[in-house]
Amino acid sequence: MQEVLVHSPATVANVAAGFDIMGFALANPYDEILVRKTPEKGVRIVNETGTFPNMPLEPLKNTAGIALLTYLAKVKPDCGFELVFKKKIKPGSGIGSSAASAVAGVFGANELLGNPLKREELLPFVMEGETVASGVAHADNVGPALLGGFILVRSYTPLDVVKIDTPENLAAAVIHPQIEVRTEDARAILRKEVLLKNAIQQWGNTAGLIAGLMKGDMGLIGRSLDDVIIEPIRSILIPGFKEVKAAALKAGALGCSISGSGPSIFSLNENVEIAEKVAAEMKATFEAIGIPANAYVSKINPEGVKIA
Amino acid sequence: MQEVLVHSPATVANVAAGFDIMGFALANPYDEILVRKTPEKGVRIVNETGTFPNMPLEPLKNTAGIALLTYLAKVKPDCGFELVFKKKIKPGSGIGSSAASAVAGVFGANELLGNPLKREELLPFVMEGETVASGVAHADNVGPALLGGFILVRSYTPLDVVKIDTPENLAAAVIHPQIEVRTEDARAILRKEVLLKNAIQQWGNTAGLIAGLMKGDMGLIGRSLDDVIIEPIRSILIPGFKEVKAAALKAGALGCSISGSGPSIFSLNENVEIAEKVAAEMKATFEAIGIPANAYVSKINPEGVKIA
Repeated sequence: MQEVLVHSPATVANVAAGFDIMGFALANPYDEILVRKTPEKGVRIVNETGTFPNMPLEPLKNTAGIALLTYLAKVKPDCGFELVFKKKIKPGSGIGSSAASAVAGVFGANELLGNPLKREELLPFVMEGETVASGVAHADNVGPALLGGFILVRSYTPLDVVKIDTPENLAAAVIHPQIEVRTEDARAILRKEVLLKNAIQQWGNTAGLIAGLMKGDMGLIGRSLDDVIIEPIRSILIPGFKEVKAAALKAGALGCSISGSGPSIFSLNENVEIAEKVAAEMKATFEAIGIPANAYVSKINPEGVKIA
Repeated sequence: MQEVLVHSPATVANVAAGFDIMGFALANPYDEILVRKTPEKGVRIVNETGTFPNMPLEPLKNTAGIALLTYLAKVKPDCGFELVFKKKIKPGSGIGSSAASAVAGVFGANELLGNPLKREELLPFVMEGETVASGVAHADNVGPALLGGFILVRSYTPLDVVKIDTPENLAAAVIHPQIEVRTEDARAILRKEVLLKNAIQQWGNTAGLIAGLMKGDMGLIGRSLDDVIIEPIRSILIPGFKEVKAAALKAGALGCSISGSGPSIFSLNENVEIAEKVAAEMKATFEAIGIPANAYVSKINPEGVKIA
């Protein structure tokens, strides 16, 4: 096999209270990347998206390039790889664009080499790609993009990643307004210290969300989707955030918060029908203030990255 | 029925990372309190413990008295109650002494009145008792003492209490060294602000502990029993803490931390046999530095307060 077409899903990180430690995979949108073996060693990046002309082609400046180079340094195959970006989740959208690319490249190369590493063993390599995107190695997007489902990153040092069962019908509505929030900016405005009393509320909510998901208790999931530390600060960067969140809750969402570092906003919902209605209301609310927005509705995607 | 003898269990609050939001009930030790209907209204407290001469007898200065008065103000029965303290978990031990008393009184009175309120409806009244003990209404001891099992207090306003399933064999070892740490002091030395990076670790661990308990994953439970915020500060008040914790882990404990505000130290273990061994090592370590200590071993107590 000389090439594979890989689909790598968008992901929602943080999931309200779980800043830096939680994320889940969406069924759509997803990155489509052709991974091709080349006789020359190293990594070559080809941009066939048509829509993202500024994509860095130099591997060391591209999250997918760095992740793949890190993987190749470990596996040391007698070949190189070309990554042909066909379709791409928009960078800076807050739904794990760079994570999806990094996961696609490493997963595809590992497939073409006959899977020298297991899927879960690829995580440290794809995390290297995130260093470029946010300055820190994170797993809350790459974890679910690689492994699928809902992922808890209990710890980074050492890395400890736990897959959490979720209710069958649980459905996400994600709205991506056509504005850009840079991950670096979203991180820079956060304070280095937080009030203990707020931190207590937050760890009550992360614990509550895990309990709600595993019990299949929709009410508890909704009550636990409450971020008292990050959302109040980051939402300043998203015009219309309060109105869109209010519209989501009014339309029946269990809860609603910023996806990753924004500007996308996600909600979790009891089922796809409610999620569709919620997505429509969120989109309409953005458009009412003059911001075009894309809406995505999907159940939690259980499988993660895959061969198309 | 004119009187009931009530057994109300000791509890371990915080459970490492879950400061103010988690607790579980022990099978032993427990408070033994005789609750007796009296024709006169109000609350009378009788100390028959023999070992705690300083117990406040004035109802408004006694956690059990306050809790019962709060309950009576709601239920308005045509009688009063006498609480005869027979045997008591030592105050200031860090295993929910005041919580056990408060729960015993209200539970017993409610029984004698034919259960006008359901067990879970008693929680706000017993929480009032904790206001006296710590200056703040807490539920992480009274919750498990009243309801049994492992309790997550997701939120205080509004109160949101969730029972978490735990592995059948999971066993606690609790060591109570004969020193006193006042709850107020243990609270006063905490900083009002914490580092965001530490808070992130902490909410990873609260989420991880819930996932570990519900999955029955002993390894994950152990890795999640890690408190990077409160334990490093409060352990200063407990001579020998580091050595006792090291002894517990060496003897096979999954994890070990301060019980409540201390000075008791708890560990969770895969089964009662390991817990017995761990308890012996913890006790010996305290005694080697000249501090007598009581050891308790029990599974998680699923039922909480009960008629003896």
